[in-house]
Amino acid sequence: MALMEISVVPIGTSTPSIGDYIAGVVRILEGEGLKYKLTDMGTIIEGEADELFSIARKLHETPFKDEIKRVITQIEIDDRRDKKVGIEDKVKSVMSRLR
Amino acid sequence: MALMEISVVPIGTSTPSIGDYIAGVVRILEGEGLKYKLTDMGTIIEGEADELFSIARKLHETPFKDEIKRVITQIEIDDRRDKKVGIEDKVKSVMSRLR
Amino acid sequence: MALMEISVVPIGTSTPSIGDYIAGVVRILEGEGLKYKLTDMGTIIEGEADELFSIARKLHETPFKDEIKRVITQIEIDDRRDKKVGIEDKVKSVMSRLR
Amino acid sequence: MALMEISVVPIGTSTPSIGDYIAGVVRILEGEGLKYKLTDMGTIIEGEADELFSIARKLHETPFKDEIKRVITQIEIDDRRDKKVGIEDKVKSVMSRLR
Repeated sequence: MALMEISVVPIGTSTPSIGDYIAGVVRILEGEGLKYKLTDMGTIIEGEADELFSIARKLHETPFKDEIKRVITQIEIDDRRDKKVGIEDKVKSVMSRLR
Repeated sequence: MALMEISVVPIGTSTPSIGDYIAGVVRILEGEGLKYKLTDMGTIIEGEADELFSIARKLHETPFKDEIKRVITQIEIDDRRDKKVGIEDKVKSVMSRLR
Repeated sequence: MALMEISVVPIGTSTPSIGDYIAGVVRILEGEGLKYKLTDMGTIIEGEADELFSIARKLHETPFKDEIKRVITQIEIDDRRDKKVGIEDKVKSVMSRLR
Repeated sequence: MALMEISVVPIGTSTPSIGDYIAGVVRILEGEGLKYKLTDMGTIIEGEADELFSIARKLHETPFKDEIKRVITQIEIDDRRDKKVGIEDKVKSVMSRLR
């Protein structure tokens, strides 16, 4: 089980606001049935590595449908094979150390 | 007002777990008085660009105190000058589009 | 045609040096027949989006074979559909503007 | 001695091309006297951590001068304290392992 953070940024939008494109990405993601969490800087998704790369490919494609000709997609995958780590597990683990 | 996501990763830890180092970073951050939010993939901090670069420099240094000789720090700064965007504002903005 | 930068970092290596793992990643990449360029901070690969996501999946898996239980992989894909951009094209384009 | 890769992306450019902004960033960097290398996905700079964070702050500001109201800047710093690592050293180290 791994966690992926993905951020899909359309270039050439004429305005600084890209929220409509992010909403489009989240709509596609909602149809996939994977557990995810939207943050201010990206979307965190939980799944097996194969699932995560597969959904990343799909999400990267989303903004091109809206007359956008360039997309920069960033992905970070944190993949542990020694224990199961899901969404919120790492946050809880750090918080428990702080108490 | 800008948002920064930062992730500080010590290399050469002998175990896959780096939660103690992350907790160390958050402890330093708590002393700084900036609004922040811990996620599973990094820490999001709200502030002016100058404040964000300054705190990033400080957080990057934290793991070196624990016998670690190499640190890889990733930072992303999303800086808008046309409107004030704080923590949770972008999430709310996307959520409102999805409804 | 798109460009991808990928960096595959094994966590829990006991020493700060991870060059052996990077070499392992490059060996796998060499068998794939895609044009690539090694930099000090990652590997840049040229290809269609489908090819890039597919090879990224493969490269991410490489360090797990060497007793490593956690891998953090970062990927950035810059995908333009209005013109063909290959390795060195963006560098040349910026250099020509500077002259 | 550390290495930093930085990429400064203006949002809201109306065209997919951002090469003029990248050239502006490189022009500022050239005045700083630090060793750097332009790649297709960012700029790699060699220096002490303090120098790198300081120049990153300056480079991040560059596109705002050109009527741009939003900039997303990505930075990765790889900082080793056990040995001196400069530009091209990591590439050479991996290449020597491959031979």
